[in-house]
Amino acid sequence: MTPIEISKHGSFVRGNMPSVPILSQEWRARAVARLNSLTKPPGSLGRLEEIAARLVEIREEERPRFAKKVIFTLAADHGVTDEGVSAYPKAVTQQMVLNFLAGGAAINVLARHAGIDVVVVDIGVDADLGEAAGLVNAKVARGTRNMAREAAMNEGELYAALGLGVGLAAWAQTEGYTLIGTGEMGIGNTTSASAITAVLARRPVALVTGRGTGLDGPALRRKVEAIERALEVNRPDPSDPLDLLRKVGGLEIAGLTGLILGAASRRIPVVVDGFISSAAAAIACTLEPKVKRFLFAGHRSSEPGHSALLEIIGEEPLLDLQMRLGEGTGAALAMNLIDAAAKVLDEMATFASAGVSEASA
Amino acid sequence: MTPIEISKHGSFVRGNMPSVPILSQEWRARAVARLNSLTKPPGSLGRLEEIAARLVEIREEERPRFAKKVIFTLAADHGVTDEGVSAYPKAVTQQMVLNFLAGGAAINVLARHAGIDVVVVDIGVDADLGEAAGLVNAKVARGTRNMAREAAMNEGELYAALGLGVGLAAWAQTEGYTLIGTGEMGIGNTTSASAITAVLARRPVALVTGRGTGLDGPALRRKVEAIERALEVNRPDPSDPLDLLRKVGGLEIAGLTGLILGAASRRIPVVVDGFISSAAAAIACTLEPKVKRFLFAGHRSSEPGHSALLEIIGEEPLLDLQMRLGEGTGAALAMNLIDAAAKVLDEMATFASAGVSEASA
Repeated sequence: MTPIEISKHGSFVRGNMPSVPILSQEWRARAVARLNSLTKPPGSLGRLEEIAARLVEIREEERPRFAKKVIFTLAADHGVTDEGVSAYPKAVTQQMVLNFLAGGAAINVLARHAGIDVVVVDIGVDADLGEAAGLVNAKVARGTRNMAREAAMNEGELYAALGLGVGLAAWAQTEGYTLIGTGEMGIGNTTSASAITAVLARRPVALVTGRGTGLDGPALRRKVEAIERALEVNRPDPSDPLDLLRKVGGLEIAGLTGLILGAASRRIPVVVDGFISSAAAAIACTLEPKVKRFLFAGHRSSEPGHSALLEIIGEEPLLDLQMRLGEGTGAALAMNLIDAAAKVLDEMATFASAGVSEASA
Repeated sequence: MTPIEISKHGSFVRGNMPSVPILSQEWRARAVARLNSLTKPPGSLGRLEEIAARLVEIREEERPRFAKKVIFTLAADHGVTDEGVSAYPKAVTQQMVLNFLAGGAAINVLARHAGIDVVVVDIGVDADLGEAAGLVNAKVARGTRNMAREAAMNEGELYAALGLGVGLAAWAQTEGYTLIGTGEMGIGNTTSASAITAVLARRPVALVTGRGTGLDGPALRRKVEAIERALEVNRPDPSDPLDLLRKVGGLEIAGLTGLILGAASRRIPVVVDGFISSAAAAIACTLEPKVKRFLFAGHRSSEPGHSALLEIIGEEPLLDLQMRLGEGTGAALAMNLIDAAAKVLDEMATFASAGVSEASA
């Protein structure tokens, strides 16, 4: 694996977003014709067939394969944890990064199971992790500022994080990855994602804010109040997703936004994990609606704000297993299904080749 | 792989069903304690944790593994195809068996993807397939009789098919398989499964009968009428699942019923595929409700009768991908998830071992 030198790859400059292609109906027609020639009643594999067709459109190949798959797990801290919005101490972000690097976290287990590489990126952890083996050190800042008092990021930080994400997509392309999953780790980041959801989906904060890693009632009320205060203090512009992202987002969320835009611009399909990743995806889709066709929603999180984000993304999740862990765990399971859908298209026999009779008209 | 000699394995005699154990709460408690020690918020992996706990209960091991997995795809023909109830000619059953053996069908692709062996069993195909390489030749009869005119099976055929299924479970145990999936192939078998559903779930035939492999409107009406005639002619006893199975079932459905009972009696968890497999599972659960805890419902089929069967089985499906193919395809995808759940339990680091802080109480 080539070391990731972000400086060599993409950047993100206001007014100069990665350009995302429109998918071609011609490739879709080719995919459907092949699917209908395979030894099964037409359409009987349901969403697997729909996935396979979209993969053909995105990749512009008759039988795309996904042997090389990667999940980027971006880690960052959140100043808003000062408000007591998480059941876990902030130090868990850095502790979990080390757990990822040692291979002991859920994302490691599920990615190994599905043959997916995991790239762990420090984009904003509030600790010195520079020499940890295997870590991509791309720290933009030691966490965000406390959004309940001021803007989470300044413009320089926002664009650095977005550009880093674009760079990761560029690196993935040079390494031959053809399927990307999003992942994140950051104590306090459901608070940030709920703030983004409330503004982007124009919903009351209380309806899109949940227990995160397991808050009790009083802590949940503190979390809602912190978000309401953050929106009051920062007054993000609902029509400007980057203003919203800068004021109440997180460095990992900004990085994932860049990653999604960069991947779509390179025709690499992206499997979006749960609530936090969907906040990044919703911002990317609002900035550039053409991104939507490059995204698959991995799973339905049990966080209450997730459905509102899925509506913006316009995707029905592939899995609903009542998960709410993040890290990329839902993406890992869904990438396995997407890989399976591609194999159906590539490996199944046709009615003609297998000598099987077709249905009477 | 040892050749399958059914005669050496189980049998099924009326009044002498395989004995199914009750699962122990003590093993469940052990599983939950371990799950809560792993580096994730308690319960945050949702249904994966529930699956893992149940696997521990079933296997009575702290960290059960599922390296050896098998799907039995049982093939048989149905006399009721004389009534014009399928979009495909009856010959497709034998053609698809050859496709399975050649590795070109959807079940082959999806099982390979998940590292699952596929064992194809001729339990009642209306063709001579005896020497086909890789096929388990266990033909009980050349298909069932036309249930719209008479009972589908006689008692000897029913018990032979049930006993064959029990024998497959016994063989799987001797081969070291620890997870079994159900699969089937039989032109006309949604007709049989709908008849079973109508009686077992006490629903009107028209509400539990669907388009199968793709019937148009007039053919769907023929199918409903054929089932109504079958129930009128045979008058199956709703309180006697084996009477129902004999009169309107199929040889592959009876075989799967025996397989499920045999697997549960040997503490081997079973992943039930779609509509047809669920008809077999519902009969097994009605005969012996203790079976339910050994079953996982692989996916929600788009056949309208499936929900009624799932209620009898008492399981929420793991996947909902609008599939309606059978063969074991939904089971294959779900077995992959179950394998992943077991790996979470076995491979994840604990808070203590990884030095990660736990939540504040």
